[in-house]
Amino acid sequence: MAQQDKSVAIVGAGDYIGAAIAKKFAAEGYTVVAGRRNGDKLAPLVEEIEAAGGKISARSLDAREPDDVTAFLAEADALAPLALTVFNVGANVNFPILETTDRVFRKVWEMACFAGFVTGRESARLMLERGQGKIFFTGATAGRRGGKGYAAFASAKFGLRAVAESMARELWPQHIHVAHLIIDAGVDTEWVRELIRQRGGPDDPQGLMPPEAIADAYWQLFQQPETAWTFEQEIRPYGETW
Amino acid sequence: MAQQDKSVAIVGAGDYIGAAIAKKFAAEGYTVVAGRRNGDKLAPLVEEIEAAGGKISARSLDAREPDDVTAFLAEADALAPLALTVFNVGANVNFPILETTDRVFRKVWEMACFAGFVTGRESARLMLERGQGKIFFTGATAGRRGGKGYAAFASAKFGLRAVAESMARELWPQHIHVAHLIIDAGVDTEWVRELIRQRGGPDDPQGLMPPEAIADAYWQLFQQPETAWTFEQEIRPYGETW
Amino acid sequence: MAQQDKSVAIVGAGDYIGAAIAKKFAAEGYTVVAGRRNGDKLAPLVEEIEAAGGKISARSLDAREPDDVTAFLAEADALAPLALTVFNVGANVNFPILETTDRVFRKVWEMACFAGFVTGRESARLMLERGQGKIFFTGATAGRRGGKGYAAFASAKFGLRAVAESMARELWPQHIHVAHLIIDAGVDTEWVRELIRQRGGPDDPQGLMPPEAIADAYWQLFQQPETAWTFEQEIRPYGETW
Amino acid sequence: MAQQDKSVAIVGAGDYIGAAIAKKFAAEGYTVVAGRRNGDKLAPLVEEIEAAGGKISARSLDAREPDDVTAFLAEADALAPLALTVFNVGANVNFPILETTDRVFRKVWEMACFAGFVTGRESARLMLERGQGKIFFTGATAGRRGGKGYAAFASAKFGLRAVAESMARELWPQHIHVAHLIIDAGVDTEWVRELIRQRGGPDDPQGLMPPEAIADAYWQLFQQPETAWTFEQEIRPYGETW
Repeated sequence: MAQQDKSVAIVGAGDYIGAAIAKKFAAEGYTVVAGRRNGDKLAPLVEEIEAAGGKISARSLDAREPDDVTAFLAEADALAPLALTVFNVGANVNFPILETTDRVFRKVWEMACFAGFVTGRESARLMLERGQGKIFFTGATAGRRGGKGYAAFASAKFGLRAVAESMARELWPQHIHVAHLIIDAGVDTEWVRELIRQRGGPDDPQGLMPPEAIADAYWQLFQQPETAWTFEQEIRPYGETW
Repeated sequence: MAQQDKSVAIVGAGDYIGAAIAKKFAAEGYTVVAGRRNGDKLAPLVEEIEAAGGKISARSLDAREPDDVTAFLAEADALAPLALTVFNVGANVNFPILETTDRVFRKVWEMACFAGFVTGRESARLMLERGQGKIFFTGATAGRRGGKGYAAFASAKFGLRAVAESMARELWPQHIHVAHLIIDAGVDTEWVRELIRQRGGPDDPQGLMPPEAIADAYWQLFQQPETAWTFEQEIRPYGETW
Repeated sequence: MAQQDKSVAIVGAGDYIGAAIAKKFAAEGYTVVAGRRNGDKLAPLVEEIEAAGGKISARSLDAREPDDVTAFLAEADALAPLALTVFNVGANVNFPILETTDRVFRKVWEMACFAGFVTGRESARLMLERGQGKIFFTGATAGRRGGKGYAAFASAKFGLRAVAESMARELWPQHIHVAHLIIDAGVDTEWVRELIRQRGGPDDPQGLMPPEAIADAYWQLFQQPETAWTFEQEIRPYGETW
Repeated sequence: MAQQDKSVAIVGAGDYIGAAIAKKFAAEGYTVVAGRRNGDKLAPLVEEIEAAGGKISARSLDAREPDDVTAFLAEADALAPLALTVFNVGANVNFPILETTDRVFRKVWEMACFAGFVTGRESARLMLERGQGKIFFTGATAGRRGGKGYAAFASAKFGLRAVAESMARELWPQHIHVAHLIIDAGVDTEWVRELIRQRGGPDDPQGLMPPEAIADAYWQLFQQPETAWTFEQEIRPYGETW
């Protein structure tokens, strides 16, 4: 493994997508800095990456707290120059409009949109100083389509996409690659499998997207030369209906 | 003027667009209920509408306060059954990403997105009871495109558009017409004219959209039969570049 | 009925949408000039409009033949200055890709796209001379989404939409209103009802869009002041899933 | 170089993009089969690829002739199973609408849309037999936006995009990856440089996209696992305004 003296910060390093991204970039020699609400849950990831010879620093992070995000990114940058930030906080909920409370609407926005804005801005602050870096946001189809029952989630995801697009237009010319990856499929997580079971679906559902495939998509974006960057990329499994 | 025993609530009844909508619907015989941050500024509008024989009730309204919005809509509905709510609160700002503070980002969202969500939901609550009504949102091109410097404004406007779209998918089948009107032009207001002057433009700029034209567009949407509703409509002057 | 000394040309005046548009504009006092493949089928429409006191000229028209289109529009313009052209030729087919022959692909394009281009261009040629006029195209959801089996139809409808958009950008500043009306629903025609019956649906299906509602939508577009024109408008019934 | 017993067919193997794709896939061990209007011009490409130890077969091809396309793809498939077809025929023109002749409109469509449809369908015919393969189309921003003066070009490119999208929805579930790569920038070709010079631009313009970057983007798409395919990808240089 070629060691890179660069760090990759993951805001929202959950068990599936976030963890897969962490493993991929650690395997490529980057120092991974992983944050999630309950940092204790990161122990197995740390163990796995270190056992494979990778470097990782992990801790609790409340992405809705700007000061915490700023500190988290500074820590990453102190370990090694920050090459990439991935914002990967989700907050999928579905409620009829009359049952979508102010509290839910606000909380989903704080997690999926406001936290992404702060993460993007603070990453840019560090990266602009050295005129390079990448900021990738995990999006969803709900960022393009306001489906029935998704007023809160879609509104936050639309808002995140706008942040990404606005930042891309401002930061690309300064050599900062901002991108938005839209995942248009169920991701193969325990939570999704349970949901499918509850709805009477099979125990071993087909067509779920493995988290590793998402990590690979991020790796491809990361490899793009600055002469041919992509802002928005949508991925889905071959069998998905769209 | 044929009197209608129905009310039209305008959340964000500013001097230009909101006032023009108020005058149009008052002239068509509807009881207009107008709210804006500083209710005192509504005095000339009230005077003008009443002088023309129209009915209007006006007061201060902080659209970011859910309880205030709920009360405002209930007052409208008490005067006459609520036929239409127009959400027309704007919050256009432009800052480089590093200068877009948490406070600005949050405030713009509260005004242009959260307030719209609450206004839409509370209107729906009243309208669903009688299985009819219309909820129209004033959008902007920034609701479709995240331009440079517009992280805060575009994010809020994207979010508002998602709310409108999600509500439309849920409420149309229940006979509530939810629509989103995108105004892709400078509106002819004193503020825009001043801005143009400051940038060295002419004293009498061409191509600004008169507020009355926007009111007419809302009136057209309002007239649509439920067999052929429009969700999103974009309007711009003939000479506008797009 | 106030008589207008202006003509409205309808290219593709079929039994349903085209006929409804013809009746609406005739009822508003315009001289309607209607063309369709088999002009004999226009007899009942002529009879109905004339019985109601309207003015109509009808004849066979092969919209794929540029010279025929040019002559048709010139005839309309000779009767009374051409105020509006509606291009309303359809060509909906669905085939698996391997069964979509070159002939079908080409023919659908000639009818739904090429004919629209010629109709638009030749209308513009007449209208530009007097610096006014309107050119409206009937679109479909297939103009925005390439569904399974719709390679031929969607390709033609996408192409038509591009023609409309390109013409709008060039002609609006010259006071010619070009618009694209997207009809996102089954229209209530004998053909659609038969299709529904064949698929085991009810004899009296709900949710079909009455042709009159489409005519009304065109009438609304026609009424827009040039300070607030719409390029693209989508209409669907309240109960439609989208 | 690891040899692959697979062929890559390039329909529209021009001097720049097409040639770069040919070189990339030849360098990766694929047998390249290149076609363009004037096959003689392929001599330098053949020489270069063979000198580097790659395999290429080149000939004249009129992509507007279905029989010729069918034969061309069969030849590729006979050399080695067809793994990828790239459709790369361009036809960019700009004319005011009144000067866009029927002939130009038709010809641009035949080159940029109809030929793409035939190429896609005939590739699918070969690939479906073995349940694998990839079909990539080179798109342009004009496939999404009908700019002023681009009625012919945009209409063809919109149409091509619809073909790609419709094919993707049908063929992905059968393990054929159909994708559409949108190149949103001037490509660094002699023709573009000359154009820039003519318009008074610099001799050495910045911000042009090197053809190799496009080839790399195709290579990335080609590498995607079927659990995470992309249908549409847009690339542009970091400094491009969009």
